[in-house]
Amino acid sequence: MKAPQRMQLSRYLPVLDWGRTYNRTALSNDMIAAVIVTIMLIPQSLAYALLAGLPPEAGIYASIAPIILYAIFGTSRALAVGPVAVVSLLTASAIGQVAEQGTAGYAVAALTLAFLSGGFLVLMGIFRLGFLANFLSHPVIAGFITASGILIATSQLKHILGISAHGHTLPEMVRSIFEHLADVSLTTVIIGVAATAFLFWVRTNLKPTLKRLGASALLADILTKAGPVAAVVATTLVTWGFGLDARGVNIVGDVPQSLPPLTLPGFAPDLMRALLVPAILISVIGFVESVSVAQTLAAKRRQRIDPDQELIGLGAANIGAAFTGGYPVTGGFSRSVVNFDAGAETPAAGAFTAMGLAIAAVALTPLVYYLPNATLAATIIVAVLSLVDLSILKKTWAYSRADFIAVTATILLTLSLGVEVGVASGVAISVLLHLHKTSRPHVAEVGLVPGTQHFRNIHRHKVETDPTLVSLRVDESLYFVNARFLEDLIQKRVTDGQTIRNVVLIFSAVNEVDYSALESLEAINHRLKDMDVGLHLSEVKGPVMDRLQRSHFPDSLNGKVYLSHYAAWKALAADAAE
Amino acid sequence: MKAPQRMQLSRYLPVLDWGRTYNRTALSNDMIAAVIVTIMLIPQSLAYALLAGLPPEAGIYASIAPIILYAIFGTSRALAVGPVAVVSLLTASAIGQVAEQGTAGYAVAALTLAFLSGGFLVLMGIFRLGFLANFLSHPVIAGFITASGILIATSQLKHILGISAHGHTLPEMVRSIFEHLADVSLTTVIIGVAATAFLFWVRTNLKPTLKRLGASALLADILTKAGPVAAVVATTLVTWGFGLDARGVNIVGDVPQSLPPLTLPGFAPDLMRALLVPAILISVIGFVESVSVAQTLAAKRRQRIDPDQELIGLGAANIGAAFTGGYPVTGGFSRSVVNFDAGAETPAAGAFTAMGLAIAAVALTPLVYYLPNATLAATIIVAVLSLVDLSILKKTWAYSRADFIAVTATILLTLSLGVEVGVASGVAISVLLHLHKTSRPHVAEVGLVPGTQHFRNIHRHKVETDPTLVSLRVDESLYFVNARFLEDLIQKRVTDGQTIRNVVLIFSAVNEVDYSALESLEAINHRLKDMDVGLHLSEVKGPVMDRLQRSHFPDSLNGKVYLSHYAAWKALAADAAE
Repeated sequence: MKAPQRMQLSRYLPVLDWGRTYNRTALSNDMIAAVIVTIMLIPQSLAYALLAGLPPEAGIYASIAPIILYAIFGTSRALAVGPVAVVSLLTASAIGQVAEQGTAGYAVAALTLAFLSGGFLVLMGIFRLGFLANFLSHPVIAGFITASGILIATSQLKHILGISAHGHTLPEMVRSIFEHLADVSLTTVIIGVAATAFLFWVRTNLKPTLKRLGASALLADILTKAGPVAAVVATTLVTWGFGLDARGVNIVGDVPQSLPPLTLPGFAPDLMRALLVPAILISVIGFVESVSVAQTLAAKRRQRIDPDQELIGLGAANIGAAFTGGYPVTGGFSRSVVNFDAGAETPAAGAFTAMGLAIAAVALTPLVYYLPNATLAATIIVAVLSLVDLSILKKTWAYSRADFIAVTATILLTLSLGVEVGVASGVAISVLLHLHKTSRPHVAEVGLVPGTQHFRNIHRHKVETDPTLVSLRVDESLYFVNARFLEDLIQKRVTDGQTIRNVVLIFSAVNEVDYSALESLEAINHRLKDMDVGLHLSEVKGPVMDRLQRSHFPDSLNGKVYLSHYAAWKALAADAAE
Repeated sequence: MKAPQRMQLSRYLPVLDWGRTYNRTALSNDMIAAVIVTIMLIPQSLAYALLAGLPPEAGIYASIAPIILYAIFGTSRALAVGPVAVVSLLTASAIGQVAEQGTAGYAVAALTLAFLSGGFLVLMGIFRLGFLANFLSHPVIAGFITASGILIATSQLKHILGISAHGHTLPEMVRSIFEHLADVSLTTVIIGVAATAFLFWVRTNLKPTLKRLGASALLADILTKAGPVAAVVATTLVTWGFGLDARGVNIVGDVPQSLPPLTLPGFAPDLMRALLVPAILISVIGFVESVSVAQTLAAKRRQRIDPDQELIGLGAANIGAAFTGGYPVTGGFSRSVVNFDAGAETPAAGAFTAMGLAIAAVALTPLVYYLPNATLAATIIVAVLSLVDLSILKKTWAYSRADFIAVTATILLTLSLGVEVGVASGVAISVLLHLHKTSRPHVAEVGLVPGTQHFRNIHRHKVETDPTLVSLRVDESLYFVNARFLEDLIQKRVTDGQTIRNVVLIFSAVNEVDYSALESLEAINHRLKDMDVGLHLSEVKGPVMDRLQRSHFPDSLNGKVYLSHYAAWKALAADAAE
């Protein structure tokens, strides 16, 4: 194969790129990373399946084929793809609206959701629409993740309490928990609270303790990450040993011993229609989360990822999940960081992780029969509470009121009306606030700095002005949202100053003039002509002038276009020095 | 009353302003204008009521109280308020969804719609939200008005054909007309076609003919505007003389001889909820239409209007319509231009027009008993076809593809899915296209122009560069939509050029850095630090620097902020002259 052809192909199949130079060092580094990640993923996968309302094996299946497909199509060397907390919550919320939890329809809907989500990601990748994810502003994402963390933790309280409760918003969940408080299983509470307390202790105190005892940093790290495994083993043994399942403790129970099965998503038009919008939402949110992680990790090794190719990698992973008994997946933060820290060099580490999980799916599933759901709930609660970061409220308040409004609205609406309304409103509010900000652009009236050819704001500097001439510097691109503002501003300036004979607009900061702004400029020109006042432009950028020349505006202009504003001043100011 | 107090009050009651200096010249000018406008408005009011699906007198009532209220609260000296074509169409579309045409509920819904619309306008005025109307871009408005003209003309075909048909979209209307083609009344068609042909001839040929015959310009103008009155008189006489109403010609029939009645809008919660969104749409579209007219006319006399006070004037007019048997109104283009051309000097002209219409409502309504609906339909068709302007397609195609897409989508969606979906989609498309355009801001890599302190694009000019230093001039404000773009761009530039030690961002054209962009800058800083590359800023504007200083960014910056880019160059370029 010739080199240019290979470059072309390897853009769409990054595996061709790193695969060619794969060697023994990379192999051993990748295998070590895979072992560590596999140990961490087993309880995590079971727990997130529980969060999504699916049988536990779905979480493991969703970690196998997707990882391998991402390794082939993805561009990040360290990203680990699989079920994550927020996407699991979105999945539960979406398919809870079309099917009853625990039914076959529910699992099929999860496959359809993964398929739609994957298809949408691939389409976005092919049309190179990665930029659309940017419509989610950082405050909206931060608010959404924080609110989701609160919702997820609350949704797991029922497992800690051993009751059945439901709801997709905070008020619904809290009310439902209170309604079922009479059913609380004390044994379950003891296991759940003990597991939660232990995991919190592991997360906050274990690593420093181990280091103080002389353990190496890597060992301390591995032991800390293995905390959930320890909790799983301990509570499973206790439950089995004392027969607690007969005393009201809900357990995981039978998990089929099997490689990921071949499954077919449901293609009924009604189902597809009902899941389309949630699938788009899951795609976009999953993509944003994944790209942030991948970019951060790539930068640490001065590597790059290609966001549009990432869409294809994540899309392939989701389509893979749809046909192998999984549910929507994305690049996870904690698993990717662990993978990276453990030394993974190439996506092959992901493939080895998939093998480890496949072995677990075949060999280890009987061992989790007595695992209490409360333990899995505890691992979720401890994991997601690190997502809850209310400091974003303080930071945006200090920095910008508009961003504060966006983040507050997103948090409150997500908690009170659910994840879908919350994030959609957050996006709408961000866009409206941005349009509002640009709707009143800064326009400075300038005068000549004596003895120079420079012009400065007349309200801030001591400058020369001329009563017959108004020089306005427009500090924003002109487009429909602010076009009329300029009309009003000039109308006011000229009717207030009856001596004015000429108006010059300085376009040095105008990067665009859209059709609405063109019509506003024409209206301004027309009205000034009616008042017998000239309209001139100065310092128009090349691309803007090219575009204006496609219209009749330059011909009908009741004045001239000057290259520099100093030239305009010399020609128009009554008392300008010759 | 002291002068400052009066100024304060007259801002909200402009009548206090012009009322103090009212004199005999103004009085006689205003009265002449009022007579001309009244003659024009009688057939127009009846016709627009027909278009809105309301009894004919509603059109006259809607022209009386609203004109007077606008004269008190409005700021334009020449605007004439009353029923207009597009708002009548929107009214028919909105109340057609909650009540059957011809029922009492239909008329009450029209009052409620006027009340809600008026209330919304007043609220927008009090909160000074006039800028919201700017979200309707010129191409969207142009496309919407054109499509509405086509819809209105099509909706009137049934009256010309003498059949009953219905529908709110073009396909619905056309299908309904074809279904009823068997019922066509030939006599009605003859009257309708003759009236339409006559009115077209008046509009295009009468004025030049009269001028050629030696008539003064004013007389020619008045006679031309009286064309519809002539058509009304002639077809009424023919219908009465030959008893055509017995031969299938639908006539206006009984119109109560009465001053505008006192009416009460319906306040049922269900009705209010159903009409709220249409009322907002009518308010915004009516406001945009009215303000454009008022601004154009005010500029001709070097006067100003206050858009926020206009909201209050139009709101008062609509609330007036709600309590006097009318329906939603706004400032009309043709009636305002006639008023202005006829010499109206103050809003008193409007008050005199209202008196003229009140006299007509009491004394002249029996005379229109035999007026064929076909004649009214003819006046509407001829009036609205002047709204249809497909040249906007050609103009936007030449000027900007994005604007062309917005106008085309608005026209097609309005025709095929109705006025509400059409205009809402138009707004959404405009906003998305704008966000897309700013999502990839222009970023120029610059170098030093030899022998100067100026920097220019390295791809366009022969400039000095340094292999360890990248200078990037960012030509757009940084906000969430383009924040990530800058991250990608810098990441790519730095990973491609492994000799780079420093990156300087030139912020001379950056007018805003929102919280998302701040986080992106922090991420860029962090990643560059990981690569051991310095990040610097230069030429940051005062307000942007003030805002950045509220965050930790300037402290954590892995580099410096330079006042001028030349200072940055001198400090950082390896081979910079000392």
